[in-house]
Amino acid sequence: MNRLIIFDTTLRDGEQSPGASMTREEKIRVARQLEKMRVDVIEAGFAAASPGDFEAISAVAKAIRESTVCSLARANEQDIERAGEAILPAEKKRIHTFIATSPIHMEKKLCMTPDQVLAQAVKAIGWARRHTDDVEFSAEDAGRSDLDFLCRIFEAVIKAGATTLNVPDTVGYTLPQPFAETLRRLIERVPNADKVIWSVHCHNDLGLAVANSLAAVLAGARQVECTINGLGERAGNASLEEVVMAVKTRADIFPVKTHVDATQIVPASKLVSQITGYPVQPNKAIVGANAFAHEAGIHQDGVLKHRETYEIMRAEDVGWSHNKLVLGKHSGRNAFKSRLAELGIELPSEEALNAAFSRFKALADKKHEIFDEDLQALISDEALTPAAEHYRLDYSRVFSETGETPRAQVILSVGGEEQKAEAEGSGPVDAAFKAIEHIARSAAQLLLYSVNAITTGTDAQGEVTVRLSRDGRIVNGQGADTDIVIASVKAYLNALNKLHSSEDKLDPQKGSV
Amino acid sequence: MNRLIIFDTTLRDGEQSPGASMTREEKIRVARQLEKMRVDVIEAGFAAASPGDFEAISAVAKAIRESTVCSLARANEQDIERAGEAILPAEKKRIHTFIATSPIHMEKKLCMTPDQVLAQAVKAIGWARRHTDDVEFSAEDAGRSDLDFLCRIFEAVIKAGATTLNVPDTVGYTLPQPFAETLRRLIERVPNADKVIWSVHCHNDLGLAVANSLAAVLAGARQVECTINGLGERAGNASLEEVVMAVKTRADIFPVKTHVDATQIVPASKLVSQITGYPVQPNKAIVGANAFAHEAGIHQDGVLKHRETYEIMRAEDVGWSHNKLVLGKHSGRNAFKSRLAELGIELPSEEALNAAFSRFKALADKKHEIFDEDLQALISDEALTPAAEHYRLDYSRVFSETGETPRAQVILSVGGEEQKAEAEGSGPVDAAFKAIEHIARSAAQLLLYSVNAITTGTDAQGEVTVRLSRDGRIVNGQGADTDIVIASVKAYLNALNKLHSSEDKLDPQKGSV
Repeated sequence: MNRLIIFDTTLRDGEQSPGASMTREEKIRVARQLEKMRVDVIEAGFAAASPGDFEAISAVAKAIRESTVCSLARANEQDIERAGEAILPAEKKRIHTFIATSPIHMEKKLCMTPDQVLAQAVKAIGWARRHTDDVEFSAEDAGRSDLDFLCRIFEAVIKAGATTLNVPDTVGYTLPQPFAETLRRLIERVPNADKVIWSVHCHNDLGLAVANSLAAVLAGARQVECTINGLGERAGNASLEEVVMAVKTRADIFPVKTHVDATQIVPASKLVSQITGYPVQPNKAIVGANAFAHEAGIHQDGVLKHRETYEIMRAEDVGWSHNKLVLGKHSGRNAFKSRLAELGIELPSEEALNAAFSRFKALADKKHEIFDEDLQALISDEALTPAAEHYRLDYSRVFSETGETPRAQVILSVGGEEQKAEAEGSGPVDAAFKAIEHIARSAAQLLLYSVNAITTGTDAQGEVTVRLSRDGRIVNGQGADTDIVIASVKAYLNALNKLHSSEDKLDPQKGSV
Repeated sequence: MNRLIIFDTTLRDGEQSPGASMTREEKIRVARQLEKMRVDVIEAGFAAASPGDFEAISAVAKAIRESTVCSLARANEQDIERAGEAILPAEKKRIHTFIATSPIHMEKKLCMTPDQVLAQAVKAIGWARRHTDDVEFSAEDAGRSDLDFLCRIFEAVIKAGATTLNVPDTVGYTLPQPFAETLRRLIERVPNADKVIWSVHCHNDLGLAVANSLAAVLAGARQVECTINGLGERAGNASLEEVVMAVKTRADIFPVKTHVDATQIVPASKLVSQITGYPVQPNKAIVGANAFAHEAGIHQDGVLKHRETYEIMRAEDVGWSHNKLVLGKHSGRNAFKSRLAELGIELPSEEALNAAFSRFKALADKKHEIFDEDLQALISDEALTPAAEHYRLDYSRVFSETGETPRAQVILSVGGEEQKAEAEGSGPVDAAFKAIEHIARSAAQLLLYSVNAITTGTDAQGEVTVRLSRDGRIVNGQGADTDIVIASVKAYLNALNKLHSSEDKLDPQKGSV
């Protein structure tokens, strides 16, 4: 088989990054983009982790037709039942069950003997097979597991009906050569190894997640688990974009092909970055703003213009396009609608379209040139606004002068009722947040405040991310506006609305694969 | 030899990132931190690229005693003379000369035959040896060069007196296995290969710079060229921090040791990020804010508390320390001074200390808790302010209200003369920038505007980076304040002052190694 299966776990392992937790609607938006990119498998979450995550997986399962939808589950009957129910609406379904196989984890975390672990894994596959024929088994912390034991447990789960066997490097500790060697030996030694797909899941603690994944592919792995932008716990997972483009660019070395439409990579990267509030550094491979900067009119001597002297990929191959002046003040509703369609944005109803269009008009009044990025932020602002916002900004006023303490006044609609407050602060944003807190009294802690300009120019919109934490729950709020104070207030209220929302989504319980 | 030489090129290749160009003072600050980290070789710039770069290398050569100071030079006499002069004040000096060896580069860029290239390389080593015994030779675009020709040219330059031979992957195209194989074959075939140090320089276009460097180390390379945060052209270079920590953490596999003091890694990362305006993404290995997030009070079940179950490095090993409440409103001058000393910050004079202390007092009035990061920003603000600022902010006033166009008024001192302007804008920052432009009329283009909160909490200082471009020259301005509008104005003026400064530092001509 020379097909490399791309298993995206942005919505599960990626979401485990602190504060990257997504709402159901956000997961659906990302999943739609992943499907458009032709990712083979979308791990949509960990159904047993929380009712919110269950709902989100189920919603993704309903929305996605082309990609396989997968839920993670520990190797117990309850987890697997929840996973099975959550993915039920999907066209193609997978259950991904895992159990730890390293001595340290079996002893300290599971308090089980190796034989008990093996028996549990076999039972888990049986439970999963009641829901789908597509069952993946992961040996958690495989990197520190005994090879003989791995062979035994893999042999047993193949017999029980597992179709994909995953070898994770849970702690990001392995190196390409030894990891490839492990895969090679497993595939050699496990009976019926050729009847299943071998998969790897690498973490990036030493910066080697992609290299380890690729080494495993050369050793016979035919599935790579990865995330957009390399999102994930700690230093993250293997980056989908790097894995896909390495395999594609070095087709002379890799005996495999993916189905991924690489031109959807940059849009996917931007979407995930925007939703999670996790920026992509400019010097990130493939999706960083500078990754192709030698094309961008930067000083370079004539010779560099011979494309092949320095270039191995083209920016447009991975979906970079220059900021396009798409719309302006005089653009009509049809132009707006058709540009959204070109960007792959579908609004659920005519009302939503009308609301978005009037926001577009308001923006065009303030900003001469409306770029694709502005449209995406606008729609996102729209999508982020729950139908019944508890907190809504009706009016704000900030004032800051050298020698004076900055002041802000806000009028909010709180559950439909108008409330007014004023506060001073160390800056206009601080003053505005304090004024909001006089009203909301959320007692939330501000963990992160960041601003990115969406496009260039002094009238660019600022996109603000505010991360709040309360009682162990962490939410991200986003807001975009040409006025940075307004963008900040929108982001703060968006976060408060998420904290307030009845969809009581807990921090997903960690799946440690 | 089991010593791995760490060659840092943050100040040369890193500086070639668009907009990352540093002033002389900034290069000295970074070089001091690199020396403190015990980096073996500091490539301080490309002496022949511009008078500014020459001055900067020379200043670094004067400031640094422990590390070797190196300048890049093309393989011609003039470049090498400039390099030799620039590094003259250094205690330990290196000249790094390069020429392209791939057919495509020799033909299209150099218009030379292979024999001419070889003869030129040999002459270059001779010129360089007049200045120092420590001469490095790079075969540009080695990855696409003919191996036989590489062997010939390397043999010849060893004979001519080169002491380090560098094999760069200029386009970031190679993979670990083939790259290791190239190194292995070169070391086997080149006569007297054991008399020199073999070096590698990898680019990260496919996300494999670190993996390729490490594979080369296993094949016999004993120098790795790398940068802090993986800064560098396009997707950057191999990350110093990842190379160092991989070798250290996997001492069971790598037969080498570095001299680097890993606890200086995070301070170096923050310094470079702050000076260049290049953020580090949270999921970056080692130096990303989340790299060790599992330690940071994030929900985790009890078992994870057994450190060894999930952890392979400790955050404090690489210099992470929690925000420390170091100083407050009532701290005295001595406490301030001794905390600076602990942070490794030396101020050049009593006046500088007094100025910094009064800024500290002003900040402490606005902000209850002063963290180490705040002190660093404060000193940086101080250091960034050239003795004779052309533009200085005397007064500002911004006003923004729902339904009104945001307005700003500024009074600047321009070359000592007071000037006043008012403007409207799409937000208060835009209005303030426009007001400044009414006065300065710089005609500069705003390329980037970004804000990072230096610490957490609503009264955190915002650190703003403004990147301006004019006539092909790109500068970064930074400013920090608890008021985001003031921080933005400071950053804008800092950038204007850089554009205005007589030190006419051009975009460094690119060295393509």
